[in-house]
Amino acid sequence: MTVIALPAAGAMGAGLGCVLAAHGATVLTMTEGRSEATRHRAEQAGMRPASLNELARADLILSVVPPAIAVTTAGQIIAALPGGHRPIYADLNAISPDRSREIADIVAGHADFVDGGIIGAPPRADSTGGPLIYLSGNATDAASLMVKHGLKTKVIDGGIGAASAVKMCYGAMTKGITGLTSAMLLAAERAGIGEVLHAELSRSQSQLLTRSEQTLPDMYGKAYRWVDEMDQIAAFLTPERPESQIWQGLARFYQMLADDEASDKSQVSDLDHFLKRREKTLGNSSRST
Amino acid sequence: MTVIALPAAGAMGAGLGCVLAAHGATVLTMTEGRSEATRHRAEQAGMRPASLNELARADLILSVVPPAIAVTTAGQIIAALPGGHRPIYADLNAISPDRSREIADIVAGHADFVDGGIIGAPPRADSTGGPLIYLSGNATDAASLMVKHGLKTKVIDGGIGAASAVKMCYGAMTKGITGLTSAMLLAAERAGIGEVLHAELSRSQSQLLTRSEQTLPDMYGKAYRWVDEMDQIAAFLTPERPESQIWQGLARFYQMLADDEASDKSQVSDLDHFLKRREKTLGNSSRST
Repeated sequence: MTVIALPAAGAMGAGLGCVLAAHGATVLTMTEGRSEATRHRAEQAGMRPASLNELARADLILSVVPPAIAVTTAGQIIAALPGGHRPIYADLNAISPDRSREIADIVAGHADFVDGGIIGAPPRADSTGGPLIYLSGNATDAASLMVKHGLKTKVIDGGIGAASAVKMCYGAMTKGITGLTSAMLLAAERAGIGEVLHAELSRSQSQLLTRSEQTLPDMYGKAYRWVDEMDQIAAFLTPERPESQIWQGLARFYQMLADDEASDKSQVSDLDHFLKRREKTLGNSSRST
Repeated sequence: MTVIALPAAGAMGAGLGCVLAAHGATVLTMTEGRSEATRHRAEQAGMRPASLNELARADLILSVVPPAIAVTTAGQIIAALPGGHRPIYADLNAISPDRSREIADIVAGHADFVDGGIIGAPPRADSTGGPLIYLSGNATDAASLMVKHGLKTKVIDGGIGAASAVKMCYGAMTKGITGLTSAMLLAAERAGIGEVLHAELSRSQSQLLTRSEQTLPDMYGKAYRWVDEMDQIAAFLTPERPESQIWQGLARFYQMLADDEASDKSQVSDLDHFLKRREKTLGNSSRST
């Protein structure tokens, strides 16, 4: 039986773990010192609690952790590998291609490294849908194991870093749009023109308004995780490119929203207030015919 | 007959001028020292060439100029007003509420100031469609004159600055999305994953891809004008807000694209290259069933 390790049972980690376990893999995760919610999520997903040393004996290790600890996670697992055991180590985190290559250097000589990036939301409990996992580098064996156990993968050319680059570009757009929309809905509320802007968006940018209604409330609780992803995107662009400043600003903005979510929620309340307006017709508009 | 002055016959100025002239107004503009294209555009729109002194005798002055010269334009026109003549001066530019109030101070005592913001593309030659012009402050008379001569207006509460705030928020979102999408399509090309990202966007972000195909090629020639608008949005947000950095970065990015458009067009070519890919199916994807 294939043993697959997912060090952390976050929403994505547990979602992938559930699919893998449902397709016959033994799925290990570390829950020691984690919250009761995480332990419960892991248990519901059919993942087995394991120590670091047990985790390191897996055939396939899938690193799905906050971007800020992707490097240290790799170092800890590689240090715990038993002698003579050479697993596949796939980093699926939202990190820059450079950071992925940094992890490849840590892993080199101890495990077979694969670069990865996850596009899409965690699999649902009913196991339909689920994200597409991009893989690059020598990824054939990793892809076979993952597909055999129910995950959707796409192996792409370009070597280590290519899959991370896809994830960077994609997340930069989707989370960038969410961020700059949030910033301006807050600005509209502060300027006292929230109702007017809502009516105008209903009239001429209904796709954007619908997208905001769907994505913003879901973002509040994730903003703290997006800070490092935005910083990774800025690093991916390199400081020489003027646009890297856009994602530096998005990182600081998401940090502010994360702090707000953890304190008095005044910003989050303003966003909710904007989004909950009823669509109003432009009643007092003067229009030519 | 109502005399309406539009100092500059740019794409928007001439578009509005054409509607106003078609609805019976005498429309004046300054073409001295402007390009042959501008003179031709003004003529086609039915606008009459006028000196600054003639312009200042109009009943209604609509300032539609690059944001960077909105203040100086106001100063020049106010200085040229004949004694005893008190026109309506409406600033319709993409400027911050603070800059609009600065212009209101220049105009005060000489003309009736109205704050404005234009949402939408210039009217087409057949005079259908056309933008919605938000007005705030003591805007009833200005709105009556504009509606009488074929324009679409909406008077909103909030005093001077409110209409400019609507324009800031709206332009920040639409031009922000165009900017950050462009930035990441370029990054994808540099990283060698343009084809993969195009396929992924076709699969999961088709609205965004369609929007990019429609808006990006139209942006190249306007990028130079958007630099100051992005800076105005950053100023509107105030430097204390972390998200102001997002629009500072967008301003620098559009400056780089404007410089590129005026030189070897290497960036613009990369964007075109991305957008002209045929939609490809994820042929070598490994998917579970």
